[in-house]
Amino acid sequence: MNSFGKIFKLTSFGASHGKAIGGVVDGMLPQVNLDLEAVQLALDRRRPGQSKLTTSRKENDQVTFLSGIFEGKTTGTPIAFIIQNTNEKSQDYDHLKTAYRPSHADFTYEQKYGHRDYRGGGRSSARTTASIVVAGALAQQIIPEIKINAYVSAVGDLQLSKNYTELDLNQIEKTPIRCPDLAMAEKFIEKIESIKKNGDTIGGQITCVVEHVPIGLGEPLFDKLQARLAYAMMNIPAVKGFEYGSGFGGSQMTGSRHNDIFNPDGTTKTNFSGGIQGGISNGMPIYFKVGFKPVATLMQTQESIDKNGHKISLAGKGRHDPCVVPRAVPIVEALTAMVLTDFYLLQKMRAR
Amino acid sequence: MNSFGKIFKLTSFGASHGKAIGGVVDGMLPQVNLDLEAVQLALDRRRPGQSKLTTSRKENDQVTFLSGIFEGKTTGTPIAFIIQNTNEKSQDYDHLKTAYRPSHADFTYEQKYGHRDYRGGGRSSARTTASIVVAGALAQQIIPEIKINAYVSAVGDLQLSKNYTELDLNQIEKTPIRCPDLAMAEKFIEKIESIKKNGDTIGGQITCVVEHVPIGLGEPLFDKLQARLAYAMMNIPAVKGFEYGSGFGGSQMTGSRHNDIFNPDGTTKTNFSGGIQGGISNGMPIYFKVGFKPVATLMQTQESIDKNGHKISLAGKGRHDPCVVPRAVPIVEALTAMVLTDFYLLQKMRAR
Amino acid sequence: MNSFGKIFKLTSFGASHGKAIGGVVDGMLPQVNLDLEAVQLALDRRRPGQSKLTTSRKENDQVTFLSGIFEGKTTGTPIAFIIQNTNEKSQDYDHLKTAYRPSHADFTYEQKYGHRDYRGGGRSSARTTASIVVAGALAQQIIPEIKINAYVSAVGDLQLSKNYTELDLNQIEKTPIRCPDLAMAEKFIEKIESIKKNGDTIGGQITCVVEHVPIGLGEPLFDKLQARLAYAMMNIPAVKGFEYGSGFGGSQMTGSRHNDIFNPDGTTKTNFSGGIQGGISNGMPIYFKVGFKPVATLMQTQESIDKNGHKISLAGKGRHDPCVVPRAVPIVEALTAMVLTDFYLLQKMRAR
Amino acid sequence: MNSFGKIFKLTSFGASHGKAIGGVVDGMLPQVNLDLEAVQLALDRRRPGQSKLTTSRKENDQVTFLSGIFEGKTTGTPIAFIIQNTNEKSQDYDHLKTAYRPSHADFTYEQKYGHRDYRGGGRSSARTTASIVVAGALAQQIIPEIKINAYVSAVGDLQLSKNYTELDLNQIEKTPIRCPDLAMAEKFIEKIESIKKNGDTIGGQITCVVEHVPIGLGEPLFDKLQARLAYAMMNIPAVKGFEYGSGFGGSQMTGSRHNDIFNPDGTTKTNFSGGIQGGISNGMPIYFKVGFKPVATLMQTQESIDKNGHKISLAGKGRHDPCVVPRAVPIVEALTAMVLTDFYLLQKMRAR
Repeated sequence: MNSFGKIFKLTSFGASHGKAIGGVVDGMLPQVNLDLEAVQLALDRRRPGQSKLTTSRKENDQVTFLSGIFEGKTTGTPIAFIIQNTNEKSQDYDHLKTAYRPSHADFTYEQKYGHRDYRGGGRSSARTTASIVVAGALAQQIIPEIKINAYVSAVGDLQLSKNYTELDLNQIEKTPIRCPDLAMAEKFIEKIESIKKNGDTIGGQITCVVEHVPIGLGEPLFDKLQARLAYAMMNIPAVKGFEYGSGFGGSQMTGSRHNDIFNPDGTTKTNFSGGIQGGISNGMPIYFKVGFKPVATLMQTQESIDKNGHKISLAGKGRHDPCVVPRAVPIVEALTAMVLTDFYLLQKMRAR
Repeated sequence: MNSFGKIFKLTSFGASHGKAIGGVVDGMLPQVNLDLEAVQLALDRRRPGQSKLTTSRKENDQVTFLSGIFEGKTTGTPIAFIIQNTNEKSQDYDHLKTAYRPSHADFTYEQKYGHRDYRGGGRSSARTTASIVVAGALAQQIIPEIKINAYVSAVGDLQLSKNYTELDLNQIEKTPIRCPDLAMAEKFIEKIESIKKNGDTIGGQITCVVEHVPIGLGEPLFDKLQARLAYAMMNIPAVKGFEYGSGFGGSQMTGSRHNDIFNPDGTTKTNFSGGIQGGISNGMPIYFKVGFKPVATLMQTQESIDKNGHKISLAGKGRHDPCVVPRAVPIVEALTAMVLTDFYLLQKMRAR
Repeated sequence: MNSFGKIFKLTSFGASHGKAIGGVVDGMLPQVNLDLEAVQLALDRRRPGQSKLTTSRKENDQVTFLSGIFEGKTTGTPIAFIIQNTNEKSQDYDHLKTAYRPSHADFTYEQKYGHRDYRGGGRSSARTTASIVVAGALAQQIIPEIKINAYVSAVGDLQLSKNYTELDLNQIEKTPIRCPDLAMAEKFIEKIESIKKNGDTIGGQITCVVEHVPIGLGEPLFDKLQARLAYAMMNIPAVKGFEYGSGFGGSQMTGSRHNDIFNPDGTTKTNFSGGIQGGISNGMPIYFKVGFKPVATLMQTQESIDKNGHKISLAGKGRHDPCVVPRAVPIVEALTAMVLTDFYLLQKMRAR
Repeated sequence: MNSFGKIFKLTSFGASHGKAIGGVVDGMLPQVNLDLEAVQLALDRRRPGQSKLTTSRKENDQVTFLSGIFEGKTTGTPIAFIIQNTNEKSQDYDHLKTAYRPSHADFTYEQKYGHRDYRGGGRSSARTTASIVVAGALAQQIIPEIKINAYVSAVGDLQLSKNYTELDLNQIEKTPIRCPDLAMAEKFIEKIESIKKNGDTIGGQITCVVEHVPIGLGEPLFDKLQARLAYAMMNIPAVKGFEYGSGFGGSQMTGSRHNDIFNPDGTTKTNFSGGIQGGISNGMPIYFKVGFKPVATLMQTQESIDKNGHKISLAGKGRHDPCVVPRAVPIVEALTAMVLTDFYLLQKMRAR
């Protein structure tokens, strides 16, 4: 239940509060010269407090590796890592002991498990995604040739009109919003700042593009590449939707328009397929879109109930992101790297 | 790779052609008085040749159970079943021995496995979904109190504007298009017939509504209920997108609008959450939408390539659906039933 | 629960009575030119009625493949197979409807599942091992270079004193008892015939030798090669013990005697390790021993109870083996082939 | 590969040297009031340096829990724990950088992974069993009514002649050898001391008895209770054999002697079955025996080779146990607890 992947597998642990979060990565190839700075860098991209677009809460997340690495190289045994929970203001959450916040997991955790760690959302906290970012950065080092780039493609009703072929993906990190269309980035930023001023939050979308994917990754019948990607993304807190290739737009098209005609070399003239046919990568770029709901924690007073069904009033408190998408970019990339590494290793078994 | 589910598990086998397709269901509860007619009925709803909206190809799919049932009751041991492949016109496919059809899996299967069963798409054929329907109908009998209803909510650019609360789901089977808004159903049917006349195909969407779901189903961190549903749906051939609750629309909303405010009994005034919080069912109806691309097989001539990279011309041939969504309704329901049964059994372990 | 293996996986179904038994093999490599006669031959070696040493019950087990093979080659998709249950004398078992036979699984199945298929032991019948033999014969075709030979090494208190290095394994099939020491084979046969005359049964042991194993198979920490072999063997009905290399005898030895000293080429002068160190094959022959209890069905009258706790008297009835080991030899080999294939495929992923 | 269990699952990490060893337990029931002292106590029983029978190496193993516990109760989320590696004398192992010690895993790890952590055996070190003991102590708290007692039943050729029904299991912890027959315990101790004086080591055996097991645990076909127990035990370093109930002795018996005749209440007059029929617990005590080889590290000079195939001479060095069985007793108990907890949770799903 707390593991992700079949061959390359992350087992995750930890909650918003408590000693530490972390994970164990099983299935790492041996003899990989690890670039540990790249792992920390990925983690820094997810960190709160990077810019005024994200929460002012500072978490100086430093990853510590406990096992699986010897003389700078992977041993092929499990890589365990921890990230200390340094910023534990547990008393900030005393008012939530019995409260059920709207559109949070307080109610469902309490009902499912009979009790819950109410501090900062406990296990349902987005803080758990830090372990995903570490594991994804390790996975990426098994498949260095595959290029994975995610970027913010919508904030609220502002949508990026250009598709991935019209963008320079090298521009993604140029702005804190992580949108490679710098004009649009500006508008996204303005939108978030205006929302933040109101003590409100806003949803958004992330597009991910994967290039240089080997042909043949993905396993029919029940591990289609798109199904594992969707599964991965839908496990990210706040995600409400996933589409790849032509996506929901494709459901409005005719077959004569939608079919991707082959070039003699096996590439296709269009790419409505999104780089996947029959659940298997076809060598064209894979691209997909992920939709995020607005953050449920507001800086406004809200009505709610407590565990006894009594009405309560929740004051806006704590420090939270007005929009989750800028910090979710490295999470989307990390999960994509894990999915592709898993399939890459499986397909290696079939090599002659 | 060919199994679905963790506790309630289907292992699927078979291809478009060859002796039979079928599956093995492991994890069935013992002592369940099976309604085998309900299973066959579900299968009949998926069958080709039901109406002029679907292919004229007739497959009289009869399921035969080989094991796991004794004196009408499940024994708790695996239930194996087969569906004969009766309609094998293999010679119809001789022209496809070396051809790669556009937006089919011919190319990717050949690249992944080194050779392929070219008859009718082989293992990539949508025929494999018949096994899903059987397993889903068995799963549903473990959770009879949970009501699962899927219906067609879009054909091409025609979208049903009413949401599930405004519809009478008992009307779904009234028309062959399986849309409970009978006026809209008429328009959907006209659309498909007009597309069919052109030898073309069209995409569409299915909405699924699940009522009477117990609170507490779903497993954080990596088996969130929405993630397993998305995974399930994205494994259906032709599916390009999944969203639940507010979905992609939710990514355009503000938090103050999107948050579902509690009633004193723990239900919520709105249901943008789609019945799931933190990956766990909250007792409100679960609803989600699935987008299907247009069928890739056209009754028009198309350009393509063969396995040597030579240009070929593919004549429109065979008998295929102009739009996949009417027949996909029972598949969506079956996978939903399997996902919920799996989580239901897992949660039973935690009962005090 | 009814699947065996991680990459090369058999899902088994069926019981003593009912339409058929069979299985689905997932994880088969594609493009393997299958020798289907070899599969049937393996099945014939397990079949009842081969000689006077086994039950006179005739089961003409013919395997039928339903999927996964195209033009004689594996497609990489699941291989489903069935073996019809042709010899269904269900009425023979009417007297067992409510009886609990001593040292059978009648009582435990009834308690676990609430009811049971009482005909011929239902799912607990050794008939289910036929599916294992088929899957093992498929697995062996992935690893043709690895030689697996099992033989009977004890019947009752008669023990073969020679170890595997002193035997000509080509002699195994020379006698129906499957012991390569032909003098000892004679004594084993006499022993069984004498036991049979008394309407009694007798236990025995099987030794298995695996040669030409690549170095590096087996996965620490929890999938040690010996652990997976033990797991496999202990799942065979009637098996009571497993030991490999020096086995229980090794627990009586000193370290200075037991340590296997290396030759310069990495082979060892002795092989108390049994070809495995730290859970990983070291290239030396793997050998292990499996102990079987005597068959519980006797041709003698026995006291027992029925499901209401009333005393009953069970007459000796039916046709059963006086000693299980001759027919268990191909089952031991099949499971060994499956375990090694699984590890072989896993290790292929690490190839550079 | 580094996880054990299906529902109650330990994922283990760490090696002899490096920062820490530890694990993540997934599948813990929520709302369990944990007795953490019981966990530490179990760990203390495995610790080196308890008596003159074990290595003089002191490891003050203290377990630290990182997650999954809130206000003294389990939350149902993963319990991660670490045990620091405090006694790292890495330089002690410099002489082993290129050496392959006889009957150790140096050679196989190097061949499998391409390089290895040579310090203290790295991941192949028995130190990894500390994580097993922690997880087992957690598992035991889910099934407090089931009593698991293991004890030393042989050292070298000295065998305990009494079976478990003739022993007072409360005496086990009375002596450091952990044998409840105190007279025999004395002889075992003398034997080990004499072996130790010679710089040699000796093998031994452990018997485990499980009482108050609910009827119905164990899953046919491929997760028979005895198969999972065997699998568990054979993963302990140095284990060479497993038998349950009548074991290898049972293979010498006739069926008329071996069959366990029922009492009217469903218990049996004898218990050659060892508490398991058809892979399912029958309510009688489960008992099994595990054989351990002598420790491979000697205080004597041995011939060996280095990685280039050159002959080397290995001096006796380091501090090691002369006999592994006294400290292995809590490991056997821990794995037994984990296996039973897993099956207990699975069977809970079938409850009506």
